[in-house]
Amino acid sequence: MTIFSKIIKGEIPSYKIAENGHFYAFLDIFPLVKGHTLIIPKVETDKFFDVDDELLAEWLLFAKPIARAIEAAVPCNRVGMSVVGLEVPHAHMHLIPINSADDLNFTRQKLKLSPEEFKAVQEKITAGL
Amino acid sequence: MTIFSKIIKGEIPSYKIAENGHFYAFLDIFPLVKGHTLIIPKVETDKFFDVDDELLAEWLLFAKPIARAIEAAVPCNRVGMSVVGLEVPHAHMHLIPINSADDLNFTRQKLKLSPEEFKAVQEKITAGL
Repeated sequence: MTIFSKIIKGEIPSYKIAENGHFYAFLDIFPLVKGHTLIIPKVETDKFFDVDDELLAEWLLFAKPIARAIEAAVPCNRVGMSVVGLEVPHAHMHLIPINSADDLNFTRQKLKLSPEEFKAVQEKITAGL
Repeated sequence: MTIFSKIIKGEIPSYKIAENGHFYAFLDIFPLVKGHTLIIPKVETDKFFDVDDELLAEWLLFAKPIARAIEAAVPCNRVGMSVVGLEVPHAHMHLIPINSADDLNFTRQKLKLSPEEFKAVQEKITAGL
């Protein structure tokens, strides 16, 4: 079972943003920027483009209101998106509020936020959903 | 009209990868990696998440066979995906064959390919479609 499946099951705690029957969204614990959110399907698939067509068709519709809530919660030019997938073999999409291309640069040092900071941004985003 | 709409109309030449009624895919002329492909909707919308739900539902299904053709054409670990959108006000998605997170780093220097190199990678990718 991937670490993401453990998060979905609640075996590992997460700052949840949204959930439906097929997807789960939560704050990335190693954020590039405050508000950095991950979206994962509940079914484990390693590569993003191996995910079932039915889920791929739903994915961006699940992401849309979350992206808008992030954009409203965190000062930014817009919400960028990224799929890398070299570390956890469970397809996932990053939604990141960006002001420059460097805000989507995964080679950059990650932020260290306190639980209070995570909770504050979680509350701000979920208030917009 | 955005530069991308001019590309769709053929007013600006491009190395086309695929097209349907709603989307157009072509090689990024400033690639991070050989095989770096852009997908754009034919209707101009600035921000990705302002694109109509109907198109968002189709987008990843249009991208899927292209991503697989890129993965088959270019040696890589997998195809990564990115939406930045700070430069051209016409929503677009990058598909990039990656071996490391740095291959998706848009602050990195872009490659300069010759027309022959672009044509060769275009032919390799489209052969897999």
